[in-house]
Amino acid sequence: MTTETIPSGSRAGGPAARRARRARPDLRMLPGLHNRLPRCEPMTPDEVARIDAASMDILEDVGVVFRDEIALGDWRNAGADVRGERVHLDRGLVRNLIATIPSDFTYTARNPANSLRLGGRDSIFVPMTGAPFLRDLDDRRRSPTLDDLAMFHKLAQMSPALHSSAHHIVEPCDLPVSHRHLHITYSSMKHSDKTFMGMTTSPKNAEDVMEMCAILFGAEFMESHPVTTGNCNGNSPLVWDETMLGAMRAFCRRNQPVLCSPFVLGGANTPASVAPTVAQLNAEALSALAYTQVIRRGCPAIYGHYLSTVSMKSGAPMAGTPEISLMNFMIGQMARHYDVPWRTSNTLGGAKTFDAQAGYESATTLSAVIHAGANYIWHSAGWNEAGMHCSVAKFIVDAEQCAMAYRMAEGIRWDDFDAGLEAVRDIGPGGHYLGHPHTQDNFQRAFFLPELFDNNSIEQWQAEGAVEITGRALRQARKLLDVYIEPALDEAKDEELRDYIVRREAEIPAVEALNQEF
Amino acid sequence: MTTETIPSGSRAGGPAARRARRARPDLRMLPGLHNRLPRCEPMTPDEVARIDAASMDILEDVGVVFRDEIALGDWRNAGADVRGERVHLDRGLVRNLIATIPSDFTYTARNPANSLRLGGRDSIFVPMTGAPFLRDLDDRRRSPTLDDLAMFHKLAQMSPALHSSAHHIVEPCDLPVSHRHLHITYSSMKHSDKTFMGMTTSPKNAEDVMEMCAILFGAEFMESHPVTTGNCNGNSPLVWDETMLGAMRAFCRRNQPVLCSPFVLGGANTPASVAPTVAQLNAEALSALAYTQVIRRGCPAIYGHYLSTVSMKSGAPMAGTPEISLMNFMIGQMARHYDVPWRTSNTLGGAKTFDAQAGYESATTLSAVIHAGANYIWHSAGWNEAGMHCSVAKFIVDAEQCAMAYRMAEGIRWDDFDAGLEAVRDIGPGGHYLGHPHTQDNFQRAFFLPELFDNNSIEQWQAEGAVEITGRALRQARKLLDVYIEPALDEAKDEELRDYIVRREAEIPAVEALNQEF
Repeated sequence: MTTETIPSGSRAGGPAARRARRARPDLRMLPGLHNRLPRCEPMTPDEVARIDAASMDILEDVGVVFRDEIALGDWRNAGADVRGERVHLDRGLVRNLIATIPSDFTYTARNPANSLRLGGRDSIFVPMTGAPFLRDLDDRRRSPTLDDLAMFHKLAQMSPALHSSAHHIVEPCDLPVSHRHLHITYSSMKHSDKTFMGMTTSPKNAEDVMEMCAILFGAEFMESHPVTTGNCNGNSPLVWDETMLGAMRAFCRRNQPVLCSPFVLGGANTPASVAPTVAQLNAEALSALAYTQVIRRGCPAIYGHYLSTVSMKSGAPMAGTPEISLMNFMIGQMARHYDVPWRTSNTLGGAKTFDAQAGYESATTLSAVIHAGANYIWHSAGWNEAGMHCSVAKFIVDAEQCAMAYRMAEGIRWDDFDAGLEAVRDIGPGGHYLGHPHTQDNFQRAFFLPELFDNNSIEQWQAEGAVEITGRALRQARKLLDVYIEPALDEAKDEELRDYIVRREAEIPAVEALNQEF
Repeated sequence: MTTETIPSGSRAGGPAARRARRARPDLRMLPGLHNRLPRCEPMTPDEVARIDAASMDILEDVGVVFRDEIALGDWRNAGADVRGERVHLDRGLVRNLIATIPSDFTYTARNPANSLRLGGRDSIFVPMTGAPFLRDLDDRRRSPTLDDLAMFHKLAQMSPALHSSAHHIVEPCDLPVSHRHLHITYSSMKHSDKTFMGMTTSPKNAEDVMEMCAILFGAEFMESHPVTTGNCNGNSPLVWDETMLGAMRAFCRRNQPVLCSPFVLGGANTPASVAPTVAQLNAEALSALAYTQVIRRGCPAIYGHYLSTVSMKSGAPMAGTPEISLMNFMIGQMARHYDVPWRTSNTLGGAKTFDAQAGYESATTLSAVIHAGANYIWHSAGWNEAGMHCSVAKFIVDAEQCAMAYRMAEGIRWDDFDAGLEAVRDIGPGGHYLGHPHTQDNFQRAFFLPELFDNNSIEQWQAEGAVEITGRALRQARKLLDVYIEPALDEAKDEELRDYIVRREAEIPAVEALNQEF
């Protein structure tokens, strides 16, 4: 059922490593989630067709701005109606292009046991990325360093339900902006042997990521194996910019999938209504998905979005609101209509601390994306303050929440049904089951025991220091970091990666400007 | 769409009342929820049949203990196979009896505008009850008084998504146990004109509730109108006791519905497995539902349960775990299979404070019961510490969460779809929508703006005192209580109710013992 992820190389080492292994709980990665729950599909087939038609009308009549000369040229060659920067896409052309996007693919990790199917009912949890601040092991909000990023990559590696180390979970602010992507990529490769993401903060940065992937996996191997994913945000409404399109080309040319993610602040850059917002978002996603196939026919690509509604009081993005859930259900239906894997955002929160607000927001979002049947479930750990900080405590708790959602989405076990009914006959009215062999055989796998929830009596809880969940999660994070074992990495490849970074740092001027992605 | 709930009587009053009305936000009760979302149904029809068959086997072969001479006599007369206290129920008899339970009914409130349909897709949110402690307006955990109970009844009255004032939200510990039910019932009748629940802590207490309902509604009226609901807990596995059965008879004889609620601690009093637990719970619920029809053919009744899984470490009940969600989905399918309205528990939490644990647990449960399609959604506000306390702060936040879930469950609006698409054409690529007339016309109803979530920047949040959600919710509770307007109650009825209490207090010896219900 689960696969061993500690590579054999790490079994070596001195007495300290052996002690660490003994003290270690079972941190093996869960296999990719095969979501067996029926999906929440609030649209009838006619309503799906209505969104599709509206999106196609937008693509044909309103058009999409591609602020990028190369993309405009590509579109002209592909037969689109290009007027200035605005590309009008005929629905026939769009349907023809997106038809070659694979409905699923294997996302390859450097440890083959951690490779994952993506698409259909197969889903993965990916931690948050992009936070300019963190709340650290002392719950202090501060600027993150490369060491902080490494810490999060280690925690991702040790969280069974997280299937990826992502990339810049937090921004390593102690490095020049123009060099960060190199160290971020190396850190996610080095500290984890799960899948990881590639930076798309500029076309050149994306090329560097591709080169580093080629060192790790081989350029030839990448031609037929997705080994990373990049996120490209659209500027809603209906604009794709040069940075994102250039990064997209860097990935697609190497056959690496991008998340085509319109950046939606419902009511600010979309109409103030659920169904028209989905129609616009769908048009935007389709335009980028189509472009991936202009770049390279058959390249895997992922229907994406970043989605929030904004407060009319402040313009601030909100999380965990009912319309976000509804739109997730609808977007899932649209992505399945086009038979393309899709990405959403998980466990979002706007709270400034890890208080109950963060809990409500995160759990509401998690539940919605599971019922929506999302495939690439990003921002699955740590996100708070509308993405402004990644919280260590929340990261730990979110990761466990993903494990709980995973269990729910696995569905109902029937293999021990008759044995369970035998226990009912054995025990009879008024008895109790704790001593029954069926209970003792089944309890561990029958009922999830959350480590981060405290369910003891208040007296017990007080006797243990009256620690709220933030404190318990931070204690857990320290424990995990104490027993972290770095996954073995081929020495020659490691050296080549480090050499590449040194060379590129010499070539790239150190500058300080930052593109954000969500 | 919404109904006015401030009765005309309250429009009178002095300048203070007029000021209160002016300062008052819109607190009108939302109509009963018509849940339009597709339900999460993880069982195939064959699997539903499998649970049904297993439950019927349990009822026939294992039997159910009715620890009550009257019930045993009733069952003998009804043709059941009674062996000592154990009643073996033939599946034909069970099916015949439950066939006369109405699939839906109207739950009448003293303000007719607040009456509610229950059953099918029609659902209601009912606050928690039964807490022996509260966390008060200062977040202090202490023993509750009758004044505290009145405060919660007022907050229930002013929470738009709460459809009931329930009954003993907190235990009025300043009163003798044997007199409490009288004051609890009066408080829920007096401080709210929504539906309310009736105490079932003893058969005699239940009779008192029926008498007080007869004063308020008229005994004749009750014969054809459910005006309250009582909860009867089973002792799992497979036992119903004298207290609950006597209370059930008091309600059913007056045609008032009871929630037939097995009390399930998964793994302790059921097998350690999801599907067999549901089979046992289903048998238990069916046995009580059938008995309601032995008492009075055609009386409305509700398929109930209290459901948690227990920690194998401590035996403590857990909340928000994946198996509880799965079992809710399954129980919903079973209740619909029998075409009976069903009750579940909402926003449960095991946290000792209103920390992020409470948020995760509550939102996970809320989401599950909405997707499960539950009708009578009890414990919808305030529950924490496994029901040991009701938190004022959590009550306020949970009530808003119910309003958000309500919005989600209403489903997608299509009436402004074309207008929204027109806005997309008007704005075009790169524009923004905030100034567009469609946005200004639609924003308020398009996107829910949670009052209790803070989505401001950290700078703004700090400038406002860096208050976490607990503090904000308590501030909100105080604000609401400042503008509370007591709904008018007919003076003669009010006096008659108070006279009844005085008389019964003189008759009933003041004693100190307590039956809990969940």
